[in-house]
Amino acid sequence: MEALRFAFFEVSYLLYPFSPINMNPESISLASISRVPDLIRSRHPLVHCLTNDVVKNFTANTLLAMQAAPAMVEHPTEAGEFAAIADAMLANVGTLIEEQIQAIRQAVSAANRARKPWVLDPVAAGAISLRTGFARELCGMNPTLIRGNASEIMALAGVSGKGRGVDSGNASDEAVDAAKRLSTSASCVVMVTGEVDYITDGNRLFGCMNGDILLTRVTGVGCAQGAIAAACLSVCEDPIEAALAAAVIIGIAGEKAAAISQRPGSFQIALLDELDSIDARTILEMGRIQAF
Amino acid sequence: MEALRFAFFEVSYLLYPFSPINMNPESISLASISRVPDLIRSRHPLVHCLTNDVVKNFTANTLLAMQAAPAMVEHPTEAGEFAAIADAMLANVGTLIEEQIQAIRQAVSAANRARKPWVLDPVAAGAISLRTGFARELCGMNPTLIRGNASEIMALAGVSGKGRGVDSGNASDEAVDAAKRLSTSASCVVMVTGEVDYITDGNRLFGCMNGDILLTRVTGVGCAQGAIAAACLSVCEDPIEAALAAAVIIGIAGEKAAAISQRPGSFQIALLDELDSIDARTILEMGRIQAF
Amino acid sequence: MEALRFAFFEVSYLLYPFSPINMNPESISLASISRVPDLIRSRHPLVHCLTNDVVKNFTANTLLAMQAAPAMVEHPTEAGEFAAIADAMLANVGTLIEEQIQAIRQAVSAANRARKPWVLDPVAAGAISLRTGFARELCGMNPTLIRGNASEIMALAGVSGKGRGVDSGNASDEAVDAAKRLSTSASCVVMVTGEVDYITDGNRLFGCMNGDILLTRVTGVGCAQGAIAAACLSVCEDPIEAALAAAVIIGIAGEKAAAISQRPGSFQIALLDELDSIDARTILEMGRIQAF
Repeated sequence: MEALRFAFFEVSYLLYPFSPINMNPESISLASISRVPDLIRSRHPLVHCLTNDVVKNFTANTLLAMQAAPAMVEHPTEAGEFAAIADAMLANVGTLIEEQIQAIRQAVSAANRARKPWVLDPVAAGAISLRTGFARELCGMNPTLIRGNASEIMALAGVSGKGRGVDSGNASDEAVDAAKRLSTSASCVVMVTGEVDYITDGNRLFGCMNGDILLTRVTGVGCAQGAIAAACLSVCEDPIEAALAAAVIIGIAGEKAAAISQRPGSFQIALLDELDSIDARTILEMGRIQAF
Repeated sequence: MEALRFAFFEVSYLLYPFSPINMNPESISLASISRVPDLIRSRHPLVHCLTNDVVKNFTANTLLAMQAAPAMVEHPTEAGEFAAIADAMLANVGTLIEEQIQAIRQAVSAANRARKPWVLDPVAAGAISLRTGFARELCGMNPTLIRGNASEIMALAGVSGKGRGVDSGNASDEAVDAAKRLSTSASCVVMVTGEVDYITDGNRLFGCMNGDILLTRVTGVGCAQGAIAAACLSVCEDPIEAALAAAVIIGIAGEKAAAISQRPGSFQIALLDELDSIDARTILEMGRIQAF
Repeated sequence: MEALRFAFFEVSYLLYPFSPINMNPESISLASISRVPDLIRSRHPLVHCLTNDVVKNFTANTLLAMQAAPAMVEHPTEAGEFAAIADAMLANVGTLIEEQIQAIRQAVSAANRARKPWVLDPVAAGAISLRTGFARELCGMNPTLIRGNASEIMALAGVSGKGRGVDSGNASDEAVDAAKRLSTSASCVVMVTGEVDYITDGNRLFGCMNGDILLTRVTGVGCAQGAIAAACLSVCEDPIEAALAAAVIIGIAGEKAAAISQRPGSFQIALLDELDSIDARTILEMGRIQAF
């Protein structure tokens, strides 16, 4: 799968005006991550979001704030056709209906055929049975990245957690072992979000310590992080780097927005403004990542 | 039904870390209502919202602003399972599609079986036939609270009103008699919203005079009030008190937001900020309720 | 079709408290356009929006900011019934699902029977096949106005463009000839949006030069323009004038909002505030339209 990803980026290098960054995927650093916002701004990756009804507007606005191009295409007949055109895809299972389940299946198959990266966000997996089964099915369809909170990742790894609706009942560090296991079984990178965001490919483990508690007071920040991660995947060679970039970008924007407002309404607006303003210098100054 | 509600709260007292407030439901006062925001903040009730597509994001953000936990679960297979887990449920018929009709039926049945309170918001009942029929069906399924504007409540009570789309063609005081009749026939509390919000269980009648005209210039404020009422139901023993608390909370937050901005965009953001800041002292100072 | 439109307005003049403005449709001027916001504020036209999931909330809030009355009714059984009640209708194909396709068909037929104006927004037509076919079908059902970007209008006119998802790959002036052709074949007014918004009925051609690049950084501004155009159609006799008014109103509000904030989050809020504040004097001072 990793080999296939590299093959994808080598092919895409020929087909796209996109040059992959960070040719040595072992050397993830703030320096390499700091380049990601400008890459997104120059390439405007088209991100196909099959996501939940609650967050579609906010997700699109976060992508536009970063100058990525959001698109939501929901009909099963169109979703596959569009996934092949888009640069990256997000499958978020937050408000599944039957037609969206079919659309996601089509889009995932098409993204895989076209060798486009895609993110699985298994919202509330473990808490409810239908989506848990569907998220497990998607884990077997070669996602590039799975992004979830501790309870969701633990549920997908077969470890019993304490999820309650969309909220995690577990701290992210409780889920590190589950994330490694899931990463190995699904052959993809796994990101566990929480006070620390952990990212692993089964061997390497990184953490991002950026963020602010107010990020949990606006609906869809986690879901938007999945969409931003998809945008990052389209401009980064290494999925670990892309996931880490998404964590750092949202985390720093959240810290800066919290410095502007401690109230959730105005914080949400400030967050979009900060996603627009984030640049390499800010990431080098404020980014807090760690290799374990 | 009232007896059943009390039984529910006595049972939930044993099962939950939630102690019911206001043991004497006759004595609703600003003092008892003023405790509700802090109860929500400490208990984070999980509110399952089956609501319309226009307001899902705003509804979730109003609940998060009050530190309740919103969740939207739409698939008929999941909606019932989730309603049993959640602390309260909202059924809003604003943008029904066939799958959501089925999901609402499942969720209502499950909420009733699990003795969880639920709110019916019969958006545009009376104006269009399919939803009018479905809202009447739901009136027969033991809602804890029905919240609507004057035209909607009059339509459900069988009185002809002047509804036009989602807007009421009638003032709320025109619907007081209809509300009492509907309350008796559906064995539940009814709230009629308008310049004065009226709340009745068929015998008792209360009014809330808080609010601002700008609340009508932001989409989904009424729908969000239904969701906040569901959150209140999960922490109040008496559904009348919960409905009155929802009216007072939205009304005061609207007055404070209108003092910050008279324009609808920035008013909406200020409203979320004020829902975050509202506390017992503010309710005691600004709350305007009346028993009739 | 134009004759029929005039007939409609003469009939509606009798049936409605709405008097048509601009009795001479040849003489479109800033003076006549400047009256539109106050007409909307006094008449509160009920605008039925069958639009995409990403923008429903923002669309409703833009209409409310202008004191129009938004309504989204999605069930196929209800959509037709409601379209006949509403003053104008919008059919936006951005996130079609099977049930919405049926609902749009019902609503369009009912709007035509009731002689209510309606707008087609063919989002991403040309880029994906199912919606392209459906948008072509709708072109044959007597829309009052088609509003799209250059790639979408070129695709519907049978000219190959460079659309990529929801973004146009073409400048609006490249699509003027296609717009004229589409206008003639669909017997309706066509608006091509871009740096200049062009509006034509096949013979006359007008341009609006108002706007700001930040309008492209908020999701759904174009979609909201379609809804505002529907509101304008309900208070203007000449669909060209209505389309031009919608372009001028959004464009000026965007310029004023950009003077308040250059960041997309706070710009979006300022845009809603400016839609609320726009008046005749502002349009006379800032409007930039041209007849070609």
